Amino acid sequence: MVPRVVYGKGSFDQLGDILMPHRKNADAPCIFLVDDVFEGTDLISRIPLIFNDQLIFISAEEEPKTVQVDVLVSKIRNDFTEPPSGIIGIGGGTLLDLAKAVAIMLNNPGTSCAYQGWDLVRKPSLYHVGIPTISGTGAEVSRTTVLLGPEKKLGINSDYTIFDQVIMDPELTKGVPKEQWFYTGMDCFIHCIESLNGTYLNAFSQSYGEKALALCKEVYLQDIDASESREKLMMASWHGGMSIAYSQVGVAHAMSYGLSYLLGVRHGLGNCLVFQHLNEFYPDGVALFHKMLKRHNITLPKGITAKLTDSDFDTMITVSLGMVPLWENALGTDWMKIMTPEKLKSIYQKI
Amino acid sequence: MVPRVVYGKGSFDQLGDILMPHRKNADAPCIFLVDDVFEGTDLISRIPLIFNDQLIFISAEEEPKTVQVDVLVSKIRNDFTEPPSGIIGIGGGTLLDLAKAVAIMLNNPGTSCAYQGWDLVRKPSLYHVGIPTISGTGAEVSRTTVLLGPEKKLGINSDYTIFDQVIMDPELTKGVPKEQWFYTGMDCFIHCIESLNGTYLNAFSQSYGEKALALCKEVYLQDIDASESREKLMMASWHGGMSIAYSQVGVAHAMSYGLSYLLGVRHGLGNCLVFQHLNEFYPDGVALFHKMLKRHNITLPKGITAKLTDSDFDTMITVSLGMVPLWENALGTDWMKIMTPEKLKSIYQKI
Repeated sequence: MVPRVVYGKGSFDQLGDILMPHRKNADAPCIFLVDDVFEGTDLISRIPLIFNDQLIFISAEEEPKTVQVDVLVSKIRNDFTEPPSGIIGIGGGTLLDLAKAVAIMLNNPGTSCAYQGWDLVRKPSLYHVGIPTISGTGAEVSRTTVLLGPEKKLGINSDYTIFDQVIMDPELTKGVPKEQWFYTGMDCFIHCIESLNGTYLNAFSQSYGEKALALCKEVYLQDIDASESREKLMMASWHGGMSIAYSQVGVAHAMSYGLSYLLGVRHGLGNCLVFQHLNEFYPDGVALFHKMLKRHNITLPKGITAKLTDSDFDTMITVSLGMVPLWENALGTDWMKIMTPEKLKSIYQKI
Repeated sequence: MVPRVVYGKGSFDQLGDILMPHRKNADAPCIFLVDDVFEGTDLISRIPLIFNDQLIFISAEEEPKTVQVDVLVSKIRNDFTEPPSGIIGIGGGTLLDLAKAVAIMLNNPGTSCAYQGWDLVRKPSLYHVGIPTISGTGAEVSRTTVLLGPEKKLGINSDYTIFDQVIMDPELTKGVPKEQWFYTGMDCFIHCIESLNGTYLNAFSQSYGEKALALCKEVYLQDIDASESREKLMMASWHGGMSIAYSQVGVAHAMSYGLSYLLGVRHGLGNCLVFQHLNEFYPDGVALFHKMLKRHNITLPKGITAKLTDSDFDTMITVSLGMVPLWENALGTDWMKIMTPEKLKSIYQKI
């Protein structure tokens, strides 16, 4: 679990004080990885840059990649004579995952794709701080950083992945475009459905999952004011992330990974595209999802897989079926009998 | 927040594996502080004692004291040539609080009563692990260790108080006597009511407090099976503790501290004795509490303060009014106008 968490409107302004005791010396910078949508905004002037700190703007248009991590790590190693004092990620899931991965790779040898999997990281990561500016992914609390690698989309899952510090300031999520707000929030909603209906469920994840689900329903199905809605969605993301940290996600995530790997579809949208067709596995959740879509006038894109070749489908199926813990959680140890390649293809074809 | 948490039936048996990487060498023992109700039980044989590890049985009949902490620290320093590898507390709130305090004081100079207050601890504590065997206090997750000192009952509140590792094994709470189960669980229930009705409340503590309250209602007002009930109460304690960690407790705790200081009344019972008379401050919570008392045939002791002198009342009032953050949370910054010494005395007299 994240050992230090600050929550509250305006809490972003505590960042300078929080970083100070972690600054090793004037030559060991803090590196701020920031979503480039914030370039030129007021938020940037509030980042506590001192000494030789570096601010790197990164686009979150595409899913985070292992090569991107490796390039960032090389750049940081080249730019400074000393290892940084800390890595601070400011943004949505993409930026948070990049910050986690860079913090790991600055202290571990080789390329990041070698660590995609479970518990492959050997050395503690560099001090790293996560500051979410979109709610839903749970990246602020999870022990994974999900990356597109040369061979797979898969997380670096380890105890060292977890942020040392998180700052949750609901004001930072003002101004998120509506569709992104919806798709990213649905990532959380789908986490809850997958966790609560999974075979890995225990009372710990259940209590977090139930709370996150209740908050999602308030945010997406009730009339609450914008400020309260931002706060509740931020907490939903947190609790949803905690829930899957102690259980696992399921069918939608396993399939959405294949979609993202092949087509680069953004994670939140990918989950939605898959989840709409999972009535067979999550009937109540899918019904709620359609209510939410309707209430917020969201029309999901269609025909995404219409022009794919058989070989494309095979690629998606291979990536997806590789997510063994997700399938086991969703369908039990006999999952392979239920989710055959043919079955998987038939669902992908609907998207 | 607690950085490492394991949850699950039977998870106690992971303790040996969890401690291993923290063992500095064969001369640096793990010290197990264990509630003496477990003496001679099967649980003791499952404690992974190796090298020169020490097992210390401690009675939880009385509230934990600063002198007790100081004696334990002296004993450990005398018994071993090297500082221990870790302190492991196994028991209810008393044992968990003692383990936290001993871990702090082994790395900090002076006597423990000098650290009662907020953020007075300067050096990180020794590695310490909490294993709750009764649910409700939230001691497993909180950043405080509440001790009876020579001058006050007050917590050592600090970031270093928090356990490095918690193991939550709901099976360990089998066999807790009914009244203790009730009073300790009510500590959690009262945490929720105080947190959710406090002025310090934010969306973070609210979401935790709401979930803990919902779980308390399931456990104490619904028919669920014993195993499920143990799991839910363990999670209620956890979430309730998280809720107050990010807000504060209120009137019942402030008053119960005075009662415990003067009379040594156990914390859970003390909260109940006070809370039953707080209808004015927490009407819905007090109504629910009376339902729970009735459903479980619990009769609270009466006449506790009947024979006290004016000077005794003054002592309780002084201790209680000293809990400034609790009063501020409960009644706002003008709390002194509402909770006068006379008012406080009139409530104490009812107990």
